[in-house]
Amino acid sequence: MAVQRKLRVGMVGGGGPSNFFGGPHRTAILMDNTAELTAGALRSSREGSLQSARELHFTRAYPDYESMLREEAAMADGRIDYVTIVTPNDSHYAISKASLEAGFPVLCEKPLTMTLSESQDLARIVRGTGLPFIVAYTYTALPMVMLARELVRAGEIGTIRKMETWYPQGWLSGRTEDMGVQQAEWRVDPNRSGASGCGGDIGTHAYEFIRFVAGLSALQVSGRAHTFVAGRALDDDFTVLARLSNGGIATIAASQVTVGAQNDNGFRAIGEAGTLEWSMLDHQSLKLFKPGQPVAVYRLGAEYGYFPDSIRPYLRTPSGHPEGFHEALANLHKTIQLQIRRRNGEQTPDPYPHPGVADGAAGMALIEAAIASSRAGGAWTDVVQVD
Amino acid sequence: MAVQRKLRVGMVGGGGPSNFFGGPHRTAILMDNTAELTAGALRSSREGSLQSARELHFTRAYPDYESMLREEAAMADGRIDYVTIVTPNDSHYAISKASLEAGFPVLCEKPLTMTLSESQDLARIVRGTGLPFIVAYTYTALPMVMLARELVRAGEIGTIRKMETWYPQGWLSGRTEDMGVQQAEWRVDPNRSGASGCGGDIGTHAYEFIRFVAGLSALQVSGRAHTFVAGRALDDDFTVLARLSNGGIATIAASQVTVGAQNDNGFRAIGEAGTLEWSMLDHQSLKLFKPGQPVAVYRLGAEYGYFPDSIRPYLRTPSGHPEGFHEALANLHKTIQLQIRRRNGEQTPDPYPHPGVADGAAGMALIEAAIASSRAGGAWTDVVQVD
Amino acid sequence: MAVQRKLRVGMVGGGGPSNFFGGPHRTAILMDNTAELTAGALRSSREGSLQSARELHFTRAYPDYESMLREEAAMADGRIDYVTIVTPNDSHYAISKASLEAGFPVLCEKPLTMTLSESQDLARIVRGTGLPFIVAYTYTALPMVMLARELVRAGEIGTIRKMETWYPQGWLSGRTEDMGVQQAEWRVDPNRSGASGCGGDIGTHAYEFIRFVAGLSALQVSGRAHTFVAGRALDDDFTVLARLSNGGIATIAASQVTVGAQNDNGFRAIGEAGTLEWSMLDHQSLKLFKPGQPVAVYRLGAEYGYFPDSIRPYLRTPSGHPEGFHEALANLHKTIQLQIRRRNGEQTPDPYPHPGVADGAAGMALIEAAIASSRAGGAWTDVVQVD
Amino acid sequence: MAVQRKLRVGMVGGGGPSNFFGGPHRTAILMDNTAELTAGALRSSREGSLQSARELHFTRAYPDYESMLREEAAMADGRIDYVTIVTPNDSHYAISKASLEAGFPVLCEKPLTMTLSESQDLARIVRGTGLPFIVAYTYTALPMVMLARELVRAGEIGTIRKMETWYPQGWLSGRTEDMGVQQAEWRVDPNRSGASGCGGDIGTHAYEFIRFVAGLSALQVSGRAHTFVAGRALDDDFTVLARLSNGGIATIAASQVTVGAQNDNGFRAIGEAGTLEWSMLDHQSLKLFKPGQPVAVYRLGAEYGYFPDSIRPYLRTPSGHPEGFHEALANLHKTIQLQIRRRNGEQTPDPYPHPGVADGAAGMALIEAAIASSRAGGAWTDVVQVD
Repeated sequence: MAVQRKLRVGMVGGGGPSNFFGGPHRTAILMDNTAELTAGALRSSREGSLQSARELHFTRAYPDYESMLREEAAMADGRIDYVTIVTPNDSHYAISKASLEAGFPVLCEKPLTMTLSESQDLARIVRGTGLPFIVAYTYTALPMVMLARELVRAGEIGTIRKMETWYPQGWLSGRTEDMGVQQAEWRVDPNRSGASGCGGDIGTHAYEFIRFVAGLSALQVSGRAHTFVAGRALDDDFTVLARLSNGGIATIAASQVTVGAQNDNGFRAIGEAGTLEWSMLDHQSLKLFKPGQPVAVYRLGAEYGYFPDSIRPYLRTPSGHPEGFHEALANLHKTIQLQIRRRNGEQTPDPYPHPGVADGAAGMALIEAAIASSRAGGAWTDVVQVD
Repeated sequence: MAVQRKLRVGMVGGGGPSNFFGGPHRTAILMDNTAELTAGALRSSREGSLQSARELHFTRAYPDYESMLREEAAMADGRIDYVTIVTPNDSHYAISKASLEAGFPVLCEKPLTMTLSESQDLARIVRGTGLPFIVAYTYTALPMVMLARELVRAGEIGTIRKMETWYPQGWLSGRTEDMGVQQAEWRVDPNRSGASGCGGDIGTHAYEFIRFVAGLSALQVSGRAHTFVAGRALDDDFTVLARLSNGGIATIAASQVTVGAQNDNGFRAIGEAGTLEWSMLDHQSLKLFKPGQPVAVYRLGAEYGYFPDSIRPYLRTPSGHPEGFHEALANLHKTIQLQIRRRNGEQTPDPYPHPGVADGAAGMALIEAAIASSRAGGAWTDVVQVD
Repeated sequence: MAVQRKLRVGMVGGGGPSNFFGGPHRTAILMDNTAELTAGALRSSREGSLQSARELHFTRAYPDYESMLREEAAMADGRIDYVTIVTPNDSHYAISKASLEAGFPVLCEKPLTMTLSESQDLARIVRGTGLPFIVAYTYTALPMVMLARELVRAGEIGTIRKMETWYPQGWLSGRTEDMGVQQAEWRVDPNRSGASGCGGDIGTHAYEFIRFVAGLSALQVSGRAHTFVAGRALDDDFTVLARLSNGGIATIAASQVTVGAQNDNGFRAIGEAGTLEWSMLDHQSLKLFKPGQPVAVYRLGAEYGYFPDSIRPYLRTPSGHPEGFHEALANLHKTIQLQIRRRNGEQTPDPYPHPGVADGAAGMALIEAAIASSRAGGAWTDVVQVD
Repeated sequence: MAVQRKLRVGMVGGGGPSNFFGGPHRTAILMDNTAELTAGALRSSREGSLQSARELHFTRAYPDYESMLREEAAMADGRIDYVTIVTPNDSHYAISKASLEAGFPVLCEKPLTMTLSESQDLARIVRGTGLPFIVAYTYTALPMVMLARELVRAGEIGTIRKMETWYPQGWLSGRTEDMGVQQAEWRVDPNRSGASGCGGDIGTHAYEFIRFVAGLSALQVSGRAHTFVAGRALDDDFTVLARLSNGGIATIAASQVTVGAQNDNGFRAIGEAGTLEWSMLDHQSLKLFKPGQPVAVYRLGAEYGYFPDSIRPYLRTPSGHPEGFHEALANLHKTIQLQIRRRNGEQTPDPYPHPGVADGAAGMALIEAAIASSRAGGAWTDVVQVD
């Protein structure tokens, strides 16, 4: 076997001391020994950006993403293979656009942009260029969520009647944004987060379960975006009832004020012939209910034959050696890396169809419709279809 | 200690071979050795009624409830102390009314009546007569639900922002009503069940958690009653978003088509200072979440000092000796028995404030508003306040 | 259908205010509406005994068990159908013997006697008279434990290699016997409890799982009976390693000093082809593990087809309506009642083979061998075979 | 802040396609962006070793560990900072010894050696040289296990009476070693695994919980090493009862034939004032039981204030973002890296006292005593004390 070179990753954002996503993405990029931290434009100040990239052992430090993209694109060889974007929401669009236009594949944090039209613009560019683009709906890359998708596609639960999704968190139950927590500060700021706080930050994750696991989209929504904490400009609670593309219905229940909830997203896919249930709190299990039968509990483990070939490259450890968040993120990086290696002519396993730019745009469409519905007292509102 | 006489119970309905509720109520009446099955009018046919009462060891058998009420009321002594009603919904009103008018306290199954105005009529009679009246919201009588109520009242979670309630079942995911299951037959029949199937049967239980545990009521609702199974006249899925009397919000998610769900009702009471969570699937535990602290898991057990005096008479066994449905039902009978003994001048522990006729009426008000809202595409609809 | 008369039960013991077992047995006898509390000799003092039986609504009150047995046996008709014994251990033998000799079937609490030879004597009488005799290994009457037994017998897990059993409790972690808790007082007293405290009280339950579920018995044991709490005469911790009749091995881990453990008995039956696991903490589930397959979780519910006919008469409620300790006790009473009705010529379902006098004797044999082994530093010690 | 250089790691073993531990250790070394894969001698054949190191992106490839140690030791600068050993057990001793003698700190897989005397020899060298040495008892590096240790030390459960430890696996329930699974082949081979199969492989992990969490050691043991699968030379089931250094007792229940068990190690630390319970199956929780109080469930999350400063550097993610096996391994590498940086004069947080060579030796002492006891029919056998 020939030696497979490590891919070179450029990162924008993620260098600040309180940035949450930079660290996990760096771990995810490094942990599989298939890629390296090559180029970094990690902070908003030029000095900070250069300093941070050096401290974090990037091979090349840049003062800003524009110079990074320009100089990397100009290299004869050794240039970066893709860009990872971990800035706050308000700069996703510009950096993604510039990266694509400079010819680089992109893995971008979610929500994808500030508005639907920005997302649609990115989708157009991706279609035009054919460049790989992954949106970091990280939970779709947990193996049991991927297995749920496969069991649905295999018909195990029949036609889906209802998708219940949830995402309670508790970290914004008080005025966290006033306690020096930068993660909270920008998330409650409409200028940096967009039209919805809770909906954009976590409601989009819940909605992506509907798209990814069930393969369905919302046609119409009745939404309620609620703000519980006084003085907060954006919603911290987000409830949606949706009519689905197959005639079924769905609920999205997201909240940031559920004291004690950690990061408890999950779903229940209710079909005519069975139910699949998964929860982050027990993320290495997947439950399948069939009428009159014992519950079948699938468990994570590389040795289990019930994982189809499409998931197998994403399994790392034997059963009972728990994986988690970092591995899920690494799976998204694996997918874009496989896509890139394919384009480069390498033989690789199939990249799994993890969420792309269309899913990012669909999330924005959901948010815009839900917020409009909420402002109209929950009136049923059409969701722009982006696929 | 003087010997405390057993109370004498009359039962209407519950004698048929496929009746679900008759058996558990008889168990609940007998198991504490405090009451006896005295008078029975257990079936719709005169012959069947007499036969069934003899087979089930009732002291006195009646052909119908009218004769039972008439003859018992006429007795100089030894007459029944209260009436338990376990017929289908459409006869609750008439039997309750007749029982009250004959001077008997009532413990009635839920939903209380077919319409709100019937419930309001019963409430008027109860207010007028002062007779004890309990509605069988059985789950409010599980000790951990009672403890949740007490912790809310003690301020453990502060002002409640949101009540999430749920009640998924799966038994009607197919056309159960065509398979000879009488329990299913009448539940999907508008003439015997009322305006809502899923909402009336189990949505009302979920709503009662909001009233009983949180002490709140719904002012306005946006509802969706959905029928998944083709050919069914009533809803088998029932979703409500509510604005609460304290400015908070609530969700009710009830379904009868969640394949594999057993009888999984529960709630999450989200307050400014903490969250209480309880689920039927783990009904002997109650979880209290406070910011930054370990989760406190209260467990059922007569020896635990954290049960206040108000609950203590309802505890039966030391921890780890599981109780369940029968004991919960028996607790409701205990409450009405304590109320009756009090009226009779006996010294007893305080009866716990389990749901009464107002709660039954509140359930009907919720159903009527939710169904009206659903028919209006989810428009916000006022809920008649019954207290 | 002809009316089936209620069986008449005599009870010895269980009338004192702090007696634990009297109440649950009365509940168990009453709750199925098939038997009544007829004769009581409930306390050690003559006056207390008469008073207690009246307060507890027994039809006939007796000053002591001797007079109860004598007078009941002399009745032309209406005499009791069986005797339930809920006294401390030291009187089980004499009362059982007298009851049998008076011609009455017996349901006796465990451990059956103070010594193995007493148990063997009872076994001899039972064999001679053919009278029904049930020992209250209550947990064998939980439906999921019965299902485990059936799955083992159906070969689902193949030949059993190892039976792991456990029974941690925490209620004796302090000097509970000095705090006025009568339940603790007699249990730590060798004169009333026998040669082993923890082993006799709960170790015997764990051992019965080996006999009942796996159908195996211990041939040799290496035991350690340990006393953690200073000043206590009997063991409060009991560990046994056993060689089984089929060449396999077993462990029994019982303790009364596991702070926080409630009543957490359970077992893991490890076979060549699968593992069955059950725990009191989740007593309505039974897990079946097969190599490479999803875990199959059987759940309690009268509607599930996977319960064989032999268990079906012992199911009470639809799934999700939890049962527990009282129903398990009631199942033991049901078994002896079915045995009695059979003897009387009634048509009944088959009584389930719940533990009888041989199982009581086997428990004593296990205790005697384990205590002898413990005294010999854990030396392998033969267990007298009693079947 | 000055840029902290990445440490340079040498690895011996772990390059073969079926090697289990090589991959996770490489992930663990890389994921924190603090160290790099510098020197590799990864396979037994010279050619394979060179090829494997190149494929796995090591900076320098060596044909064998001797040349690696010799050449690295001879470098003026840029030499490796420590050696990670992931070969089968039989070569741990020689490679560890050579590494230490060449002046390199060592992180070695367990069990540490083939015999106790080898371990004692290593311990002598470590004492003499003062070089950092970590034994990969990986589960001690899970944050909740570290928290358990801290709670014990803080007196939360008082004097420990009993340590129950367990480690069931199921992967050797059949003749896995005949199915081409190299992991199984060498583990059942006495020449490569040592005197005990199950005991050495996983029993030592369980015993380390006793040492690490409780701070206790076994003085005497009664052991049973059992082989269930016909034709296997080593034990696949390992049961130990131990007398502890503080007068308490302990149990170790390890098995490789528990069909369906994944990797389910755990412990219950039973003290006079409380119980701490932890299980790999729910490894992000830790339960504390105190008499009469709600169970306190500690959960993993970098934001929780109940983690003491000593653990804080080992926390990576906010609550609800699950971590697992890789992070635990990375924590061990972090500890040795912190030890090394300290020796180099860098300012670092305190390295946590993770298991060192004495713990490796203690594991061997336990195995030798348990196997000797098992051969003597479970006779109580002294355990050599190695600290």
